Amino acid sequence: MEPFRVIEVKESILADNNADADALRARLKTQGTFLLNVMSSPGAGKTCTLKRTIAALRDELRIGVMEADIDSDVDAAAILETGARVIQLHTGGMCHLDADMTRQGLAELGTDGLDLVILENVGNLVCPAEFDTGAVKNAVILSVPEGHDKPLKYPLMFEVADVLLINKTDVLPYFDFDLDKVVEYARLRHPGLEIFPISAKTGEGMERWFDWLRARVGEWKQ
Amino acid sequence: MEPFRVIEVKESILADNNADADALRARLKTQGTFLLNVMSSPGAGKTCTLKRTIAALRDELRIGVMEADIDSDVDAAAILETGARVIQLHTGGMCHLDADMTRQGLAELGTDGLDLVILENVGNLVCPAEFDTGAVKNAVILSVPEGHDKPLKYPLMFEVADVLLINKTDVLPYFDFDLDKVVEYARLRHPGLEIFPISAKTGEGMERWFDWLRARVGEWKQ
Repeated sequence: MEPFRVIEVKESILADNNADADALRARLKTQGTFLLNVMSSPGAGKTCTLKRTIAALRDELRIGVMEADIDSDVDAAAILETGARVIQLHTGGMCHLDADMTRQGLAELGTDGLDLVILENVGNLVCPAEFDTGAVKNAVILSVPEGHDKPLKYPLMFEVADVLLINKTDVLPYFDFDLDKVVEYARLRHPGLEIFPISAKTGEGMERWFDWLRARVGEWKQ
Repeated sequence: MEPFRVIEVKESILADNNADADALRARLKTQGTFLLNVMSSPGAGKTCTLKRTIAALRDELRIGVMEADIDSDVDAAAILETGARVIQLHTGGMCHLDADMTRQGLAELGTDGLDLVILENVGNLVCPAEFDTGAVKNAVILSVPEGHDKPLKYPLMFEVADVLLINKTDVLPYFDFDLDKVVEYARLRHPGLEIFPISAKTGEGMERWFDWLRARVGEWKQ
């Protein structure tokens, strides 16, 4: 038996997703649980970033994680090592999570006593941006090897993001990646976007991200 | 004015996509035009791979390119440098191309006299795998920085692929990427899958890919 549960989440056919998302957020506010939705392309480093984030904050916040994937449980297994409460959501081929799928996941995870739940969305820079999951904030991770032109090509993802983590800065010397340009392009989409260059592998630059997240969780609980 | 046309392609509401795809393939067979559908995550190196491929084959094959993106024309502009006939398709937010959108693009590109048309699909490792575009063969590019676990997490993409290019081998020393494992995982999804490790940046390993593509185009024209 797996040391974490694997949940098959189903899309709600009749749902008004925006209404579902608002209702979910209102309930999370009452409970004092902050939900962070983390989105990126496949392989941008969501799970690695989460592992470092949990390790940094676990002594001050009670944290749960929902790992969403089309298939496989490798991410939930990786998160389990951090000691966080974790479940794996399987989307049955679906390319994103909506608010009702997120609600199903939260019901299985159990939010009682949790300060922060992190939803690792399906690796996809297109579809997850179209569906409000009910999260309080949306984080997008863009990794250096993907190139600095991505905010031009995938505009909606950068519009809905509250914070952009530019990951894998440790390999900047090996790629033609212009940090100034990606900041410029991303702020064209969302002028107030918070941007933190990080390396989830080495830990470089991550303190400012931890501070940002810690402050948002604190505000939500007031 | 742009030196290439930008086409807004629309999804057909009533379409039977599989029937549309079969009809498109039959027409391409009659014309002797080979359509290659190239899919990958954002930033895996589709455009860079295409530029090298066109440069290698342009003296023996007449090549056209359709660049599909949600927004921006940066890829069509890059391909234009190769001298190939190129158009930019904008999907209006859509996360994939279907057979009718591909047909609209081919009608605008004009296939007369072309041996090979390359469709660069939207950067997305999920949705494009679900829609037969009418292409003769499907190529998937997975890049080293994305990690070797991707065939486990995105099974359908590797099932529908005829050929897998493992790109960015020039940065293998800087990533925890296991080439043997990715081959094992990909062949779990598709036992007969052709796999070529390449670096589109340095050109390393690309001759076998050119040979494969050249042979497939030759077969199609018989």
